[in-house]
Amino acid sequence: MQEKIEKVCATVSERITPKEKVRTKIDALAKKLEKRVDIASKALGIKAQVRLEGSVAKDTWLSEEPEIDIFMRVPTTIPRKSLGEVCLRIARKATRGSKQIERFAEHPYLEAIVENVRVNVVPCYDVKRGEWLSATDRTPYHTDYVKKRLNEQKRGEVRLLKKFMKGVDVYGAEIKIGGFSGYLCELLILHYKSFIKTLRAFAQHKQRITIDIENYYEGRENELPLLFQEPLVIVDPVDKGRNVASAVQPQKLYTFVAGARAFLKNPDVEFFYPPQTTALTVKELEEKLGKRGSTLIFLTFGKVDAVPDVLWGQLYKSQRSLHKLLQLNDFKVLRNLPWTDEKTLTMFIFELEQRILPLVKKHLGPPLEKERECENFLKKHLDNLGTVSGPYIEDGKWVVELRRKYTDAVALLREKLKDGGRSAGVAEQISQSLRKQFKILVNEEVIEVYRRNSEFARFLTEFLSGKPKWLETV
Amino acid sequence: MQEKIEKVCATVSERITPKEKVRTKIDALAKKLEKRVDIASKALGIKAQVRLEGSVAKDTWLSEEPEIDIFMRVPTTIPRKSLGEVCLRIARKATRGSKQIERFAEHPYLEAIVENVRVNVVPCYDVKRGEWLSATDRTPYHTDYVKKRLNEQKRGEVRLLKKFMKGVDVYGAEIKIGGFSGYLCELLILHYKSFIKTLRAFAQHKQRITIDIENYYEGRENELPLLFQEPLVIVDPVDKGRNVASAVQPQKLYTFVAGARAFLKNPDVEFFYPPQTTALTVKELEEKLGKRGSTLIFLTFGKVDAVPDVLWGQLYKSQRSLHKLLQLNDFKVLRNLPWTDEKTLTMFIFELEQRILPLVKKHLGPPLEKERECENFLKKHLDNLGTVSGPYIEDGKWVVELRRKYTDAVALLREKLKDGGRSAGVAEQISQSLRKQFKILVNEEVIEVYRRNSEFARFLTEFLSGKPKWLETV
Repeated sequence: MQEKIEKVCATVSERITPKEKVRTKIDALAKKLEKRVDIASKALGIKAQVRLEGSVAKDTWLSEEPEIDIFMRVPTTIPRKSLGEVCLRIARKATRGSKQIERFAEHPYLEAIVENVRVNVVPCYDVKRGEWLSATDRTPYHTDYVKKRLNEQKRGEVRLLKKFMKGVDVYGAEIKIGGFSGYLCELLILHYKSFIKTLRAFAQHKQRITIDIENYYEGRENELPLLFQEPLVIVDPVDKGRNVASAVQPQKLYTFVAGARAFLKNPDVEFFYPPQTTALTVKELEEKLGKRGSTLIFLTFGKVDAVPDVLWGQLYKSQRSLHKLLQLNDFKVLRNLPWTDEKTLTMFIFELEQRILPLVKKHLGPPLEKERECENFLKKHLDNLGTVSGPYIEDGKWVVELRRKYTDAVALLREKLKDGGRSAGVAEQISQSLRKQFKILVNEEVIEVYRRNSEFARFLTEFLSGKPKWLETV
Repeated sequence: MQEKIEKVCATVSERITPKEKVRTKIDALAKKLEKRVDIASKALGIKAQVRLEGSVAKDTWLSEEPEIDIFMRVPTTIPRKSLGEVCLRIARKATRGSKQIERFAEHPYLEAIVENVRVNVVPCYDVKRGEWLSATDRTPYHTDYVKKRLNEQKRGEVRLLKKFMKGVDVYGAEIKIGGFSGYLCELLILHYKSFIKTLRAFAQHKQRITIDIENYYEGRENELPLLFQEPLVIVDPVDKGRNVASAVQPQKLYTFVAGARAFLKNPDVEFFYPPQTTALTVKELEEKLGKRGSTLIFLTFGKVDAVPDVLWGQLYKSQRSLHKLLQLNDFKVLRNLPWTDEKTLTMFIFELEQRILPLVKKHLGPPLEKERECENFLKKHLDNLGTVSGPYIEDGKWVVELRRKYTDAVALLREKLKDGGRSAGVAEQISQSLRKQFKILVNEEVIEVYRRNSEFARFLTEFLSGKPKWLETV
């Protein structure tokens, strides 16, 4: 098994370690961009220290997917409110002529595609350790910390870990993913020493993993669970009050744990390079939906006016609210997810056991011990129009059978969303889009959308299967 | 309010207290029957002390429904096995020419209708206190105990309590009812002194009521909950190891509590004399079933070869098993009850939210912490024919969506009962009858039976309403 693991890792390493030629190109591009940002900032009268950060600076980037992070460290005299605005202008100027996308972390930054390479131009404040004014102020310290401690062998291990995480879909700190950041991968390798040892540690994960590389809490380990509630805690070596893994969603942690176990049992290159999903043909889809027996509801609407992190944050929040709405009305939700191409099409997907519920339901009242509550219960339900049977006593409680208010999930959603759904917990930007227009498609009614949007077609194909791709490898 | 209560009680007392004429008739009949049983036992060579027991002996019977209990106390030399047989012969002989029905408590006894009065001829052993050989051996001691302590006023209170309990349908220790016995009513009056004080005590019932008239457990009250687990405990004055209320079903206790509260709030003669239910017309029934929205399943079959207490015991037990079967298969049971006219027609009734369930259901697997169980779960469900989606991870657990084995409640019942249903927990005598024949009627398919059987028609009318009659009075 050890041999097999080593062979798989060697094969993958070969593909992800930048060769001299690519490395030269990326280094040169990074240098050029640093200079351009420097010039642009000077042109706009901003005193910024421009510096390469991130995976290229730390030499932990993946050959097949380089990403260049250029940071502008600006003086604290620039007010927090205008930081984004000012730096976006510099960034736009520096990457003029390239495709530009505004992004959002704690404050705005610019993503650009330059010579086919993804480039992020990010502002931060030039502050001393511990005097953080914005979330990205720590980044230069992270870069310095990691660069000093990772040797070439360890950088290779970081690359393997990152690529594995991408393969099992847990990599990326952005809201859409809610997974592991690059810096987090680097710290894991610093702590566990190798990719495989990291997998082994997570494969055995029980309740909690806590890592404190700098031993800030030595002798006070019992304080950690009070300070950090998350199931995965990696104390930031440059800020002992911060959990580097705080944004890792439990779902991603668990998926990593399960993926690690599966890989250790059955090492395979496919964990790193999952096969691209082939969307079902329309005929296959029709057949699958017909046999499935559940009800799929697609609540589709148009563009939402928000940068991706805000968009996804609002999508997840709104999805949770609508999920709760359905549950409160007794609909059994099998699965539910938001989906968007971040362009023209956005949707919430609910798979229900059934779209139509029975007219009648049992409603449990207070136990007989609670005399006052019983009186109120009887007053409310006796000879009420909505009462189908009872009140009667069962297991020491008053009970009635009531007519359900909503028996059709689609009617319920339509009713609650007709004013944008704010009162049902839909987030503001999503609500704005819903107020313009939305459609509710049930089961095969989604086929028109499926035909038009190949990205959605692949997504729905995966959704219907439900299982992680790497389970196929097991 | 006190005035109103007194007026209602006076009205009821007037009707239930035996007038001189009836009393003379019943006393004479009792005397005659004593003599007849005495003669019959002598004729059959059994040395029995024949004695009047029960409500007539204690003068706590209800004028409108007298019931004469004649006991034969026989020597302990008669073996337990032949006790029933021997005494049934005596009893049959003594009541020859009257309608006779074999009954069953712990051992057989005979019920006969003599001159329009219900008469029970019951055997018991002539034993010393504490040396009980059969359940009825205590009865003569009960009679003596109560006779000595109840004066005329208290006997009137016992009558009110009995009549009230009959009115709210909690009176009767037989298995069919599972309610309060006459002796229990007498003890309650001995303890609480009056009908109204008894109602007040039960109206305030919280977790437990414990009564120990003879103070057997004085200073050791904390032992009582260990000795007796039932929510209502009345230590038998003639046997401190016995709870007189042990056969009172929680449902009957709670109904009495709720009935007592309702009466105290709104005293009315109707609690004692509930109006007879008028069965819905067939047209009304059709309309009601049509609008109801639930599914009513009637599993009907023929005569069951058992005396009433055995019949009802087996009906309740079998009903619980079939209820559990439906629940285990995800059917939501609103209510369920057995019913029989104790002659030609027997049935189990289930009211379900819906007859047909969705094809797919979510099946939660082990949490990721349990590595071995997760492996087994994946092995079982991955690429299994019954798996519709997944396995996938949700809230830290492996989950699959599975095809349901049974989606039609009727098909499930038919399948499990085709061999009599013993393996599904149906009791033996019931199973025998099912093996001969059964029918499953759904909703309006029951109308033919409804038309033919007026007793069932009244029962179903009450079942559909669901609420206790006295709730109408509130």
